[in-house]
Amino acid sequence: MAEPLFRRLALLGVGLIGSSVARAARERGGLAGEVVANARSEATLARVRDLGIADRTEIDPARAVEGADCVMLCAPVGSYAQLAEAIAPHLAPGCILTDVGSTKQSVIRDVGPLVPEGVHFVPGHPLAGTEYSGPDAGFASLFEGRWCLLTPPPGTDAEAVERMAEFWRRCGSMVSGMEPAHHDRVLAIVSHLPHLIAFTICGTADDLEGETRQEVLQFAASGFRDFTRIAASDPAMWRDIFLNNREALLEMLARFTEDAQAMARAVRWGDTEYIEDRILRGRKIRQSLIELKQA
Amino acid sequence: MAEPLFRRLALLGVGLIGSSVARAARERGGLAGEVVANARSEATLARVRDLGIADRTEIDPARAVEGADCVMLCAPVGSYAQLAEAIAPHLAPGCILTDVGSTKQSVIRDVGPLVPEGVHFVPGHPLAGTEYSGPDAGFASLFEGRWCLLTPPPGTDAEAVERMAEFWRRCGSMVSGMEPAHHDRVLAIVSHLPHLIAFTICGTADDLEGETRQEVLQFAASGFRDFTRIAASDPAMWRDIFLNNREALLEMLARFTEDAQAMARAVRWGDTEYIEDRILRGRKIRQSLIELKQA
Repeated sequence: MAEPLFRRLALLGVGLIGSSVARAARERGGLAGEVVANARSEATLARVRDLGIADRTEIDPARAVEGADCVMLCAPVGSYAQLAEAIAPHLAPGCILTDVGSTKQSVIRDVGPLVPEGVHFVPGHPLAGTEYSGPDAGFASLFEGRWCLLTPPPGTDAEAVERMAEFWRRCGSMVSGMEPAHHDRVLAIVSHLPHLIAFTICGTADDLEGETRQEVLQFAASGFRDFTRIAASDPAMWRDIFLNNREALLEMLARFTEDAQAMARAVRWGDTEYIEDRILRGRKIRQSLIELKQA
Repeated sequence: MAEPLFRRLALLGVGLIGSSVARAARERGGLAGEVVANARSEATLARVRDLGIADRTEIDPARAVEGADCVMLCAPVGSYAQLAEAIAPHLAPGCILTDVGSTKQSVIRDVGPLVPEGVHFVPGHPLAGTEYSGPDAGFASLFEGRWCLLTPPPGTDAEAVERMAEFWRRCGSMVSGMEPAHHDRVLAIVSHLPHLIAFTICGTADDLEGETRQEVLQFAASGFRDFTRIAASDPAMWRDIFLNNREALLEMLARFTEDAQAMARAVRWGDTEYIEDRILRGRKIRQSLIELKQA
């Protein structure tokens, strides 16, 4: 078994992602000698102990990070500023501070200024997840075959970045670096906007008058169902993502809305050519995904 | 084996749905003694013969329906008026004329006036499908456990309606009657709008500048992928559905757009309460689906 990359890994947050990292560390060698789990609630930590996925639990984030050579923020991104403030004075010199949040400019904005001299700040984002949440939802293989994007600010210690890259590779991921603003734009269209749309259409359906609303559930199999799956995701996490990737999300939503209005106009006026063109683009993109084996 | 419900079933169109009906008739007893397949192109009929899923193929719809006691329109709904005109004089007295289209008011508008005296018109819609199309895409079990909605106009012969209900039950479906305008509203929200959104967002992504566009494909797993699956569906079929359920579709799109704009405003101004409420509705709907075992 490979020597663990980290002596002590502190996970701040043990939901779907955090608890999956904990399980990966337990089941695979070479990740961490010891895992310390922190969460906001004692109930979550009790569950972590029942599941036996961490070596130690700590309700106080400052105590959780003591002596850790890797500290990973796995809580909703909206809580990062407060968490960083709580742990900054307690971070060990030379330790790596990383995260798994879905927005990266906000993380650099909120956490960056609080990182003490001598601590390496390596923001990251494993593109993995399910619609389930909480410590029970995690599993060790969640990251296998999935991308993990690292967005270190300029000047970050290259060795620290490489250690995090190796960490995710040992979790089974493919790793790539990306500029934070570019990350936020790409994620806005591939993930954040689809989730906003899914949440919205569920609300639209929920607002329909009685009988139709009942039938929406009864006959959901015809397309709507695919939207409700992603709409089942964790509310606090998604609220924070929307608020922390505001600019890119609103831009992508504006583009989408323009395109949807153009489609509405084509439907109203019977512009078959326009409608067919848009449908064929959908097919083409699907075909590209199949060729890239992402479908 | 049960006595077949129909001596001769004529399928006008042998795409995903038509070829699935043909296969169901072949593999299950009790549906049809003989299946005649018609399509617009000789190439499709040649494929049907290769697949061996019909007893006879006919390129001329008028000849295809001769002597049939059940004629089922399985082509895109936009072709129904022309098809009905071609077959009307050739329909056998007492035969049932039915269809599988996704819009029902348009079918009654386009086909109803052409139905000869003594022919029973029973519009129907099996809520089943995949993102694949053409005679190769069908399979005999497509309708199992799925709903089939029948929308007969007032005054339709009750025995004819019951025979079609029995036909779909023997295909494995659950059958329900529905008023045509109500059908079109329900389908607009559960199926037509989700497809319009999926086609649109694929186009929006396809319009992005070079690098981001490439990464949309690379990182599609994060939500976008679910939208591309339904966006792969048959273009001619969906063009016709959009154009033939115009009013209900535009109304549902307008409601959705208002809701998406309200969400955009909440994101812009940081209205966490509103955002959380909409996300929780998505979850609630998903939960209801799971309870109804539709998820």
